[in-house]
Amino acid sequence: MDFDQLLADRMRAVDASAIREILKVAARPKMISLAGGMPAPDSFPLRIFPELVDKVLTTYGHRALQYDLTEGFGPLREALAAYIGEKEGLDVSTGDVLIGSGSQGILDGLGKILISRGDSIAIEAPTYLGAIQAFAPYQPNYVSLQTGDDGVSPDALEAVLKQGRVKCVYLVPTFQNPTGRTIPISLRQKIADLLIKYHALLIEDDPYSALRYRGEAVPSIFSMAPDNVVYVGTFSKIFAPGLRIGFCISPPSIRKWLVTARQGVDLHTSTFGQALAAEYLTGGYLDRHLPHILSIYAPRQAAMFRALEDAFPPYFHWSRPEGGMFVWLRGPEGMDMTQVYARAVARNVAFVPGTFFFVRKGDGMETARLSFTCPDEKDISRAVTTLGDVIRQYEKEMSG
Amino acid sequence: MDFDQLLADRMRAVDASAIREILKVAARPKMISLAGGMPAPDSFPLRIFPELVDKVLTTYGHRALQYDLTEGFGPLREALAAYIGEKEGLDVSTGDVLIGSGSQGILDGLGKILISRGDSIAIEAPTYLGAIQAFAPYQPNYVSLQTGDDGVSPDALEAVLKQGRVKCVYLVPTFQNPTGRTIPISLRQKIADLLIKYHALLIEDDPYSALRYRGEAVPSIFSMAPDNVVYVGTFSKIFAPGLRIGFCISPPSIRKWLVTARQGVDLHTSTFGQALAAEYLTGGYLDRHLPHILSIYAPRQAAMFRALEDAFPPYFHWSRPEGGMFVWLRGPEGMDMTQVYARAVARNVAFVPGTFFFVRKGDGMETARLSFTCPDEKDISRAVTTLGDVIRQYEKEMSG
Repeated sequence: MDFDQLLADRMRAVDASAIREILKVAARPKMISLAGGMPAPDSFPLRIFPELVDKVLTTYGHRALQYDLTEGFGPLREALAAYIGEKEGLDVSTGDVLIGSGSQGILDGLGKILISRGDSIAIEAPTYLGAIQAFAPYQPNYVSLQTGDDGVSPDALEAVLKQGRVKCVYLVPTFQNPTGRTIPISLRQKIADLLIKYHALLIEDDPYSALRYRGEAVPSIFSMAPDNVVYVGTFSKIFAPGLRIGFCISPPSIRKWLVTARQGVDLHTSTFGQALAAEYLTGGYLDRHLPHILSIYAPRQAAMFRALEDAFPPYFHWSRPEGGMFVWLRGPEGMDMTQVYARAVARNVAFVPGTFFFVRKGDGMETARLSFTCPDEKDISRAVTTLGDVIRQYEKEMSG
Repeated sequence: MDFDQLLADRMRAVDASAIREILKVAARPKMISLAGGMPAPDSFPLRIFPELVDKVLTTYGHRALQYDLTEGFGPLREALAAYIGEKEGLDVSTGDVLIGSGSQGILDGLGKILISRGDSIAIEAPTYLGAIQAFAPYQPNYVSLQTGDDGVSPDALEAVLKQGRVKCVYLVPTFQNPTGRTIPISLRQKIADLLIKYHALLIEDDPYSALRYRGEAVPSIFSMAPDNVVYVGTFSKIFAPGLRIGFCISPPSIRKWLVTARQGVDLHTSTFGQALAAEYLTGGYLDRHLPHILSIYAPRQAAMFRALEDAFPPYFHWSRPEGGMFVWLRGPEGMDMTQVYARAVARNVAFVPGTFFFVRKGDGMETARLSFTCPDEKDISRAVTTLGDVIRQYEKEMSG
């Protein structure tokens, strides 16, 4: 039986992720993939897992396997309140924290409670694809905020907020996916002031800030305007993405609806996974393990920068983030990175053409996202060199 | 800041679950609760957990902690295909199985892909509250199917299907929540025939069929009309609800959309939890542990039946399921079980007034759901006796 005629209208607005096809290609044997957004497998604290499990079973027993509150597992909420409170210099209480099934689960919940069909939300151009996928079934219109080396400009944001037509703003201010860019502190303060001035709501998605390889930590926009921000975090990059543990801290009225919405979606996030995350935080495991994660990524990122300097034409630009997982590449106007992609794949190098991260079709054709987390330094070097080669050849063909 | 003016229209249709308040009351110290729908903590295979975890880490290593496919963890899908295939006498392939974050996650996904605002879906009256909560944000209209001791009557169903106005039918045919009732095999066959005749889609929610204390297993409606049924199952009652592992087997067109929808909701279900469930199935743990679960519930159910016989007026009726977690109580017309509830709580006995399980306000005022899974036999006996007492007193007051 074909039930296609039963499809709800909202799903007609949703594409199966084009990037999924790219990730399938990237997973082929022999491929060096700069495409994925996955943490390196050797960054997982696999060895301490039996100890963590033992602690969870000893400390919580049956409770770790039982139904629990939609809001989240008490000990994890408490641990996160302390962790985020200290990190951001804020007074965060246990009740402020809501756990979700990955930050994706939080973004879906926010889409559900905020977006009526046709409502506008402001996003960076380019922006995180997962957020677009979370919001899409709720049928928003997007207002794209132009971005530069410093991310979103406060002026561009103010122009939009002034009109009062957006329900909320979605930003990844630190080591953004896909660009790797970080909004500097002075601009964050301006953004925070604008949120307060215009009574606006920001969804601040912050999966990467702990992955800093050099430079000074930058405070979140949340820390500057806590009443106007839903701060979204995740354990995916500092513990294990397979556990699907995300969280948010939000204004009380937002949290109340989020709980109601998320109760319908999955009742609650895995108690066992949350208990593991709680022990990971409170037992000092994160503090001990994070330097190991950074020690894997920092040299990989450095290898990528070196190879880009060596192998790429001088008129190419790329972001130089102090952390995160991505480097954003921009070629000369008029070039088509999807064509480069096809040629690169034929030579066993995969990446993601940047145009996929723009909502407006055809934008960012000359851009690409390169991830440095999974291949080792040698493979990164080799892949970037091949990519430089492919690009020169492509340009020759185009001009020829 | 108050952001109430930002609330999406769809959420205005969603109530925070009234039953949540009841469950809070039921959790008070000294309360004997016949209210919850939770498995008994001593039914969890806590002792084998370290062994399961060890197997998962040895067998899958990093893979158990990494991002995975939205469709589900391969080894679990494979194990479920074999398990359901054997249970239902069907040829189920790995690709047919989709994993979700609890059956709640599947129901939310089905609501999302099927229900446009105002679409009708047919449900049992009374029905499972979690399904109502999953569907509510998608703003359906409900067509209530009258139920009797044998569940939904095929005639009532045909009357609705004939009009062709419902997008799908949602049933819990075995040991239903809240009634405990099971649709007998002859009526299932009629329902299956109707689905085929009218090209209709059934969501068959089957969380309880493994909890059978006596009598013969009844085949699923899915086994009789696999092309017309989304069969939804869960590990919550046979393993651990805190892991949030549900699954479905569905027609290919439905599955394709479900994958797209669920990708936006949580990317995928916890890989680690799925790996534990896979080992639980394939390692023979379920086969060895299930008899232990049944040995806990069977005497509790028997104790409830005995106490009802002893303590209740002869004109009360209750369901006599051969399994599951619930008994459905029906008093004389005109009585108000919410008033009985208030009096019972004052005497430290909690249950759920049946009216909460009806979509139409005011229906089922004389009914109640009693759960026998968590208190031991002595407490069940005591609680039911107290309840009988409270009811006699209530009736005296009403007639006085």
